[in-house]
Amino acid sequence: MRHFLTLKDFSKEEILEIIALAGKIKQETKNREYKPYLKEKVLGMIFEKSSTRTRVSFEVGIYQLGGTALFLSSDDIQLGRGEPLKDTARVLSRMVDIVMIRTFRQERLEEFAKYSTIPLINGLSDIYHPMQLLADYMTICERGYNDNLSVAYVGDGNNIAHSWLMLASKIGFELRIATPKGYEADKKVLNDALEFAKMSKAKIIVSHNPKEAVKDAQVVTTDTWVSMGQESEKVKRQNDFQGFIVDKKMMGYAQKEAMFLHCLPAYRGFEVSDEVFEEHSEEIFDEAENRLHVQKAVMVWLDRHR
Amino acid sequence: MRHFLTLKDFSKEEILEIIALAGKIKQETKNREYKPYLKEKVLGMIFEKSSTRTRVSFEVGIYQLGGTALFLSSDDIQLGRGEPLKDTARVLSRMVDIVMIRTFRQERLEEFAKYSTIPLINGLSDIYHPMQLLADYMTICERGYNDNLSVAYVGDGNNIAHSWLMLASKIGFELRIATPKGYEADKKVLNDALEFAKMSKAKIIVSHNPKEAVKDAQVVTTDTWVSMGQESEKVKRQNDFQGFIVDKKMMGYAQKEAMFLHCLPAYRGFEVSDEVFEEHSEEIFDEAENRLHVQKAVMVWLDRHR
Amino acid sequence: MRHFLTLKDFSKEEILEIIALAGKIKQETKNREYKPYLKEKVLGMIFEKSSTRTRVSFEVGIYQLGGTALFLSSDDIQLGRGEPLKDTARVLSRMVDIVMIRTFRQERLEEFAKYSTIPLINGLSDIYHPMQLLADYMTICERGYNDNLSVAYVGDGNNIAHSWLMLASKIGFELRIATPKGYEADKKVLNDALEFAKMSKAKIIVSHNPKEAVKDAQVVTTDTWVSMGQESEKVKRQNDFQGFIVDKKMMGYAQKEAMFLHCLPAYRGFEVSDEVFEEHSEEIFDEAENRLHVQKAVMVWLDRHR
Repeated sequence: MRHFLTLKDFSKEEILEIIALAGKIKQETKNREYKPYLKEKVLGMIFEKSSTRTRVSFEVGIYQLGGTALFLSSDDIQLGRGEPLKDTARVLSRMVDIVMIRTFRQERLEEFAKYSTIPLINGLSDIYHPMQLLADYMTICERGYNDNLSVAYVGDGNNIAHSWLMLASKIGFELRIATPKGYEADKKVLNDALEFAKMSKAKIIVSHNPKEAVKDAQVVTTDTWVSMGQESEKVKRQNDFQGFIVDKKMMGYAQKEAMFLHCLPAYRGFEVSDEVFEEHSEEIFDEAENRLHVQKAVMVWLDRHR
Repeated sequence: MRHFLTLKDFSKEEILEIIALAGKIKQETKNREYKPYLKEKVLGMIFEKSSTRTRVSFEVGIYQLGGTALFLSSDDIQLGRGEPLKDTARVLSRMVDIVMIRTFRQERLEEFAKYSTIPLINGLSDIYHPMQLLADYMTICERGYNDNLSVAYVGDGNNIAHSWLMLASKIGFELRIATPKGYEADKKVLNDALEFAKMSKAKIIVSHNPKEAVKDAQVVTTDTWVSMGQESEKVKRQNDFQGFIVDKKMMGYAQKEAMFLHCLPAYRGFEVSDEVFEEHSEEIFDEAENRLHVQKAVMVWLDRHR
Repeated sequence: MRHFLTLKDFSKEEILEIIALAGKIKQETKNREYKPYLKEKVLGMIFEKSSTRTRVSFEVGIYQLGGTALFLSSDDIQLGRGEPLKDTARVLSRMVDIVMIRTFRQERLEEFAKYSTIPLINGLSDIYHPMQLLADYMTICERGYNDNLSVAYVGDGNNIAHSWLMLASKIGFELRIATPKGYEADKKVLNDALEFAKMSKAKIIVSHNPKEAVKDAQVVTTDTWVSMGQESEKVKRQNDFQGFIVDKKMMGYAQKEAMFLHCLPAYRGFEVSDEVFEEHSEEIFDEAENRLHVQKAVMVWLDRHR
């Protein structure tokens, strides 16, 4: 049995296999040929943080695969009200077929996985957001940008940046991450990525210079500067990220037909200008939609490797 | 593609077509012949306000039509936490097939509709509650009261009153609204209704005299004096609405076999006496049940006009 | 039509019939042969208190029976916000096929049942937790411990203790309840049990001596000392329950192969030691899983007695 906690645990071949499966499922979905890949299977979804996209895409996804989802918010269940996670893992393993957790702490996923006898999916954690990156890469591949790919990530060295590091270092493309000082990606994650990069021939460049990062990039991307739970640091962060907005001028450094991706929610005037957002909205909402398709693919894949 | 935001956008023929479809679906439902009119379709439901009836009737309705519902409360998703509604509209358009919103502000429905590529339903807003009125009219028709119909609405000039104005002025029946001073229906809504009334021959009478409004009416109806969000004005409102309770005496002014309708929740001793409520409970709970049937009909209708 | 509010309303034969049905359904579930016993039926679930197990087991259960569940938390609906329960009962009776309520007060179940035209299930109340006891008894029967059964309940004289009293007095086995002074089971419930015991030949012994209660018991069980809503009394309770922990020493008084059951959540170091919990985890998580199977059986049973 396999879990899906981070792209770190997946080989290039496996990632490409999932992306290909997502493409097949997307085509079937577009034709409204919902095949019962997971007939009568139940997905338990635990949300320690709220999320529109994660919630909707998983719930719709499992339904279109022939199963159903249980939405469990922290308020609804007894997680964190003194019940050890290992007990919740063992109870859910008896009642549902697959579990997705959106959590503040990656360790909680690892703890749950240890006691779970069913596949566990990381819906989003403090350290990684692997589903988002599969959706991003699928969107890139759909537009044929995956040849000689160079990606510029401009902004916070957060879970999205970490997941880009994992994706690039596994697949083997060029990734340039520019963060303000003090907002660098996690050292351990970066070192893991540099290790994987040796094998995949990925080129990983981290700096504090957004302009250089974006120069001639095929794909430019960013993420909110103030994630949920960081609201108290808002003013300080907005100050520290001055110069990191992706606006028309910044996009001007990239290749002429460069894509712009954003995992949403997007804060206009902060990490991205409204102009750039709306010009690239077709890509951005394709990217959002692809969450649905890659998640279906991951669920089917995990079920096949049970 | 059509949205269902207010009865204002619907012709008499369309309203009657929906009521007829609701009758057909109700009969099938009673026979437990659930036909898959919306097979595998997903309804996204966004609740900015809570609601028993709206929630249950939509969720049961789409299920019995062969689809499924997603329940999204404001707590669960990122609406209002800084994400522009237009982004939520565009994301949901990629993932679900139809959307229902219960909101504090009609403008939010209009904003969502502008960016939505899927049909949008008004589950209840500050200005209109069109689904309730379809259920009310269906209940009236079922009992054969729709010939030479005269309706008295006694109470607050709120979203229910506004929707009665739209229904009466579109269908063409007599509507007498009596509110306390300071609680009149919205001028703009009233003017729209008077305009439509010219064509439909509806007779619209607004006053501050509940006794006159009820005189010889075939249907008497009211609504709570204190809606959600108005709790702070409770005492003042209860004072201002003195004399507007629908009790046995008030019902005595109406026709002998007059119906009494109430959209619930009902506060006994305030807008209605317990005696009147319980005497008319069969009508009232038919009315509540008819929410289920008209909503199914509207969803099917919108899907056919996609 | 029958409701399922307490085991008090069920005969020994009916309880055994439900347990047998649960066994059959469990076997089918294990084989993934989900039979549509409740095809297209809708279960309304009202939670005045949160609960992982109750929530998940009912929602998965009705789905595997071919129906679907509506999850209604107090926040989502208008119960308790002034709407009389009898109105909610009458509305839900028009829209769903069966209702489960988890409530703080048994009287609310009785009030709801009076106005409900569909079967009502007690998911857990302040006085009784009948579903849990069916799951417990199923687990005991599966291991063949139901012959000459003696059960020791050590701890709080709460809803679990009350339900043990009902189960033992209906089925006719030996039950020894040991509580601290001031935490005895409800007098009325005890008297009812003693009355039933006359017919079933059950042996009911209540005391303040856990060691004597556990002596030679085949099954030892307990429950948290601090239930939801009692958090303010936590320190006092933990003090008063000194000596009532089920640890290796306490289990040593029981029969050599004695089972240990716990309805979860379990607080290690308080009502049970981690060592005892983990040694008996297979029984405990079977017990949790059996919630799923007995609940499916009760729903099917109620539907057959409609």
